[in-house]
Parts: sequence; C-alpha cells; structure tokens
Amino acid sequence: MAMLQRIERVLEASLVGAEAKGSPPKLGQAMRHAVFPGGARIRPQLCMAVALACGDDDPSLSESYGAALELMHCASLVHDDLPCFDDADLRRGQPSVHKAYGERLAVLAGDALIVLAFRTLVGCKPKHLERLPELTAMLDQSVGPPFGIVAGQAWECESHAVLAEYQRAKTGSLFTAATAGGAAAAGMDPFAWKTLGDCLGEAYQVADDIRDVVGDVSLLGKPAGQDQTHDRPSAATLLGLDGAVALFDRLMQQAIESIPACHGAAKLRGLVMQESQRLVPTEGPHKVERRSSLYS
Amino acid sequence: MAMLQRIERVLEASLVGAEAKGSPPKLGQAMRHAVFPGGARIRPQLCMAVALACGDDDPSLSESYGAALELMHCASLVHDDLPCFDDADLRRGQPSVHKAYGERLAVLAGDALIVLAFRTLVGCKPKHLERLPELTAMLDQSVGPPFGIVAGQAWECESHAVLAEYQRAKTGSLFTAATAGGAAAAGMDPFAWKTLGDCLGEAYQVADDIRDVVGDVSLLGKPAGQDQTHDRPSAATLLGLDGAVALFDRLMQQAIESIPACHGAAKLRGLVMQESQRLVPTEGPHKVERRSSLYS
Repeated sequence: MAMLQRIERVLEASLVGAEAKGSPPKLGQAMRHAVFPGGARIRPQLCMAVALACGDDDPSLSESYGAALELMHCASLVHDDLPCFDDADLRRGQPSVHKAYGERLAVLAGDALIVLAFRTLVGCKPKHLERLPELTAMLDQSVGPPFGIVAGQAWECESHAVLAEYQRAKTGSLFTAATAGGAAAAGMDPFAWKTLGDCLGEAYQVADDIRDVVGDVSLLGKPAGQDQTHDRPSAATLLGLDGAVALFDRLMQQAIESIPACHGAAKLRGLVMQESQRLVPTEGPHKVERRSSLYS
Repeated sequence: MAMLQRIERVLEASLVGAEAKGSPPKLGQAMRHAVFPGGARIRPQLCMAVALACGDDDPSLSESYGAALELMHCASLVHDDLPCFDDADLRRGQPSVHKAYGERLAVLAGDALIVLAFRTLVGCKPKHLERLPELTAMLDQSVGPPFGIVAGQAWECESHAVLAEYQRAKTGSLFTAATAGGAAAAGMDPFAWKTLGDCLGEAYQVADDIRDVVGDVSLLGKPAGQDQTHDRPSAATLLGLDGAVALFDRLMQQAIESIPACHGAAKLRGLVMQESQRLVPTEGPHKVERRSSLYS
C-alpha cells in the first residue's frame, strides 16, 4: 500500500474511535473537519519515507507514529487559526474549524486531537514494543516545551524571539521528529536522521515565508500576507525574497546530502527533490525566480 | 512521605523540565500559574490513596500517574476559564491564566499541560514497565472522546445533553481514572475500583452544583452562580437543593460501601468520610442542612 494510503487509513481509524457512540457528535465532526481532507501530509509521509528507506520492519509502528505527528500538526493548525492568534477564516481551502464549528469546539477539538495522537501511537500494537517509549518521548518533545511546536507558537507571545529558535520549534520540531522517529520506528539510529529533518523543517518554514509574500490564496489554501499582518519573524522579511530563496535552496541541498547510506537512499533523495519543487517551484505557473546559482 | 508531598514533588519536577533553557519564558510561567498553588489535588490524592490501600509497590508509577491526572485537570481548568467558555476571571482565588497571561498563552499553556501529563507518566521509569501501556490508555481515555473530560466539556456545545452523561464525562472520568489507575499502578485489578471513582466523581460534581448555588466566592475560589449564568445542566437545578444534597449523601455512602477488601480499606473509608465533610459539610460555618436521614 502507498505511504499516503497507509497514513489515511490510520487517521480514519483513529477518528472513528473518537466518534464512538456516547461521544458528543459535534466534537467528533469538528475533529474530522480538522483532519480531512488533509493537506500534503508532508510530516507523516516524510516519516514513512524514512522508515521505508530503513527497512520498515514494524509497519504498524511507523504508520501510527506518522499519523500521530499529523494529528499533532492538525491540532496546532486548529489552535493557531483561533481568533486570539491568526483569526484565520480559511484552512486548506475550507473554513477553519472555529469558523465552521465555533470557537469553543475549536479549542476542544485541538485538545482532543493532541490526546488522540498519543492514543494512536500508544495503542498501535507494534511488533517491537520496546521501541514505543522512545517514540512516545519523541512525539511529546516535538510538541511540548521547551522545543516543540507549542513552544514555537508561544514565541509569538514574547517581545524578543530569535528567528531560528522560533522557526525550529514552530515548524522544525515535527520534521525532525518525523525523520528521527521514522528511523527509530524501523529500529535504526534516530540521531543519524536528525539533520535531514532539521534541514527540511527549516526549508519548509522558509518556503512558507516565501509563499506568504508571493503566494495567492488559491495556492496557499489560507490567507496570504499573514506574517506581515501579525508582525511575525519571517525569513523573507529578514533576508529579502532573493535571500530567502537562496536559503531555501541551500537547506534542500544540505538535506539531500545528509541522507545516511541505506537501501532506500536514492529513492529518498528523489522524493526530497520532488518536495523541493512542490514547495518553491523553479518551473511552472507558480515558479519562483532564482538569482542564486544552486539550480543553474 | 505524605501523599500530597509526593504529588507536589512530581508536579514541580515536571514543570521544571518544561521551563528548561531555550523555552519561551512566558509559556512556562503560564503553565506554572495553572498548576501552583494547587487546589485540593483531590484526583491525585485519591489515586495515591487507592494505590497505598493496594500496597503501592511501584511508587514512581502511582505518583507520576496521579500527577499526570492533575496536569490534565489543570489543563482543562485553563481552557474552561477562557472567554469563549466560562470567561472566568478567578481560579483557585487568583487570576485565571488568560487574565494573568492573555488568551493566547492560556490556549498554549493548556495544550502544553496535556502533553506534559503524558510525558510525566511515560517518562517515570517504573519498576513494572508492563503496567505502563494500560495506565497510558486510562489517562488518554479519561481526557479524550468519547467519555473523557474534553468530551464532557463538549456536551456544553450540544443542544441536547443528558445530565448524567455530561457530568460523568466532565468530572467523573478523571475520578474513575484515579481509583482504577491507582489500583493498576499497584498491580491490582482496576475494574474492582471503578465504582468508587464513579460514585466519588458524581458526588463531587453534585457538590460543585450545590456550592455553585449556596457558596460564596471565598469558599469556591471562583465565581458562584456559573451554572445558571451559562445555562448548564446542574443537579441543583434539576432536583432542587434538598434533592441534590440527598443525592450527594447517597453517592458518598455507595462510594464507601464499594471499597474492595484490602489491607488499607479502613483508612481509605476514613479518608472518603473526611472528603465528604470537606465537600458538603454537615457542621461548621459553611454547613449545608440535611433533610434526608442518611446523617441522622
């Protein structure tokens, strides 16, 4: 089964469990709205790609861990969109959860998705039970303070935030958890796969900053110009558009070079190149011009 | 070491970890504000009391699980106090988290406390590692849908809510998780201890309804009259004050009778009696008159 199908199947099964008889119906609907239809599912797919490159000897563990990362990501989007943060009406091209279900259910759906993420991982019945504590710790560290996505979001409430720290926590942490966890789920050394996640996470955030400046709403699936509106640290603001694009290209190059020697390395390099094109295209209707020489 | 001290020590250690260098300072402060100074710490103390009655052969596990329940409880208070729910200015006699730190940090502190709860339990290094999956599942079920506290809160967003279901999820779930989990942490059958938690949880909610009607702010540590203000289902509204008091007395009686035979049963019965007096006193300046015959 393809990576994406495996992830969707686990997400679906998790949601169905949360919608069981006796549960308040609107909560389940709001949670489902937050998870389906998905975005690019980039974090779980990255996790699965690394697990597959490492042999994927415990498929239930890798796909459940990947799905748990996606549930955490969805939870963070629901809360980030709330009126007190971005006050965003749109997400993935549809109304944000608080727009569709009200603010109270958006707060609760986010909470419930965090819990569901842990449930999905811990309840996955892996072949290798001994790998579960490390993966649970990776999941919690990628979300909680000091360096997880909740801490990243909280840097927006501080008067002084260092761009790199803010972005590493807000975006990078789930990417690093995806690559390191994908390896750990397959019984490999997570540390060797950390750089790939670090670089991709930073690149993804830089790409988001770039698209926030050049993008239109139909491409983003959410309002553009949010960084400027909310006076948020952004690579595009700090380095200019050209500088941000050059940084993105450098990070993707580093990501590709960091891939450890393994059976599936070549395929994984191809996937990363493909993702690079999807995020900041060098060709097509949404292409972003390069002044740097990396692609020449 | 006394139960309460053990719990406070674990909570303190958990918070210190979340405040580590590199974490956004205000997030840690908001989390600390939500956890200290504590309320009665009734859930973790109940958990510990059951664990002790069952022999408490894995102290790190029982106290970490108890502290995790308390962190979940604190998270729910932070989110329940938000402007979109109760819009409460006071909690435990001090400003609510969103009053002290703003709404954004209140949302994030709640999220981070949920994650911290799982971290506290999963990272506790128990003697009996094999008990951890069941306890993690109990923790997540006591919070997530269909029957956990988040589902309980979500019943407030439905047009039709059954009082018993609403209260069982909103309050009862953590009490049942406390007694069943306290037993499981000590290697005993959790099922035998479920009724105690069910009864105490329902009694606690009924006591809260009673105090919401008769209480003053200094006793409650939060505004009175909230149920009526928010048109929430309440035993006092449904049964009248006398009916609610009689129900409370019946539930406490059932709770005491449900305690399984064990080494610490007598002591535990005494603690439950004591708690009954604290919640709805029959004597003293805040006594609530009885028309029922249970205490005569």
